[in-house]
Amino acid sequence: MDTTAPPDSPASTVRREAHRAVYDRDAIHQILDAASLAHLGLIAADGRPVVIPTLFGRDGEQLYVHGSVASRLVRTLSGGVDCSVEVTLVDGIVLARSVFLHSMNYRSVVVLGRARRVEGDEQLHGLRTISEHLVPGRWDESRAPSEVELRQTAVLAVDMVEASAKIRVGGPEEEEDEDIALDIWAGVLPIETSWGEPIAADDLAEGIPLSRAVRTLRGSDDSP
Amino acid sequence: MDTTAPPDSPASTVRREAHRAVYDRDAIHQILDAASLAHLGLIAADGRPVVIPTLFGRDGEQLYVHGSVASRLVRTLSGGVDCSVEVTLVDGIVLARSVFLHSMNYRSVVVLGRARRVEGDEQLHGLRTISEHLVPGRWDESRAPSEVELRQTAVLAVDMVEASAKIRVGGPEEEEDEDIALDIWAGVLPIETSWGEPIAADDLAEGIPLSRAVRTLRGSDDSP
Repeated sequence: MDTTAPPDSPASTVRREAHRAVYDRDAIHQILDAASLAHLGLIAADGRPVVIPTLFGRDGEQLYVHGSVASRLVRTLSGGVDCSVEVTLVDGIVLARSVFLHSMNYRSVVVLGRARRVEGDEQLHGLRTISEHLVPGRWDESRAPSEVELRQTAVLAVDMVEASAKIRVGGPEEEEDEDIALDIWAGVLPIETSWGEPIAADDLAEGIPLSRAVRTLRGSDDSP
Repeated sequence: MDTTAPPDSPASTVRREAHRAVYDRDAIHQILDAASLAHLGLIAADGRPVVIPTLFGRDGEQLYVHGSVASRLVRTLSGGVDCSVEVTLVDGIVLARSVFLHSMNYRSVVVLGRARRVEGDEQLHGLRTISEHLVPGRWDESRAPSEVELRQTAVLAVDMVEASAKIRVGGPEEEEDEDIALDIWAGVLPIETSWGEPIAADDLAEGIPLSRAVRTLRGSDDSP
């Protein structure tokens, strides 16, 4: 994948609001790595597009997607199929004086890719990549998957054939002087995402300390 | 759309983790109405699926989608095209003792629909529906769109042909006794979303009070 320059493909070239388009590989990786969930688009057996939410992880230029939610679609993947993976982080609502210029502040990536089901060592590597994306350090804390569990888990590898990002930051833009003079509040309403207080499982035995991976994720790992 | 019973279509029948599937119309509507952003899946002119994030709103069994981000795809819609609209609200990370049983708490809806571009009165109605979904009450506060702005804005109406929801709540499940006995923390790490402090536009004139719609959305409308 060449993400350092706009790709030739019309499908992944951002035409609308092109000033917001980003093709820098590091920016694309950062957005992917910050998202908890991806939106996987596939063409179903009946020819219709379908979008499903899924856990995912990234290893270099390859994404791994948890196929359990897509198991009926995965069956069609023997030779690899085209797919799209999209992630978006929402940062706020942009309120302009004009309805037309209302917008959101966001960071999004759209990947056009090729998905194939992986098995054996690559399946395990994919699962670890997905797990470490969700909660870094948790894989080594947990009980590893059994053979039976691996047979029940579909993992897709997605080659990022093309990728582009869009980033919007800041307040309302492009408003005409006559709109700015109107007696209408304008600005940004930020949307903030944070971790809540961990909730122990009902059947957690007494004396088991909170997961170190969870403490690290919450930025409160003050243990030795 | 009949969402009161599982639809016949294999494409929208949730097969995997079917105990999490919800076909109740009210539940589907509630999830759609609570999401700020939708993920629109279409088949591009080259036959590949593409997923793009978009603003949206709901009016009964119809969704309206802001087509500006999909302008190049919208051109193919003269006769209406199949699409998928997905929204997901992420509520937390579920940490089990077993890597295999890690999950997320979430509320998601997958719509299989038919999109067509709307114009004239329905375009205006669609824009208002999208705006009121994003910030209720803001439409009437703002300067209405001009003829020129309307020509620059594509709005798609999506008939919800089929829709299903999935909801997962609570702690880790289905763990074996031998796993529960392991010395591993298990539970849920909640993910919380909240409004931040509104940020006025740089060019906001002094003396203009904060938008009532924003105050209402933040639950702090203590004005008369």
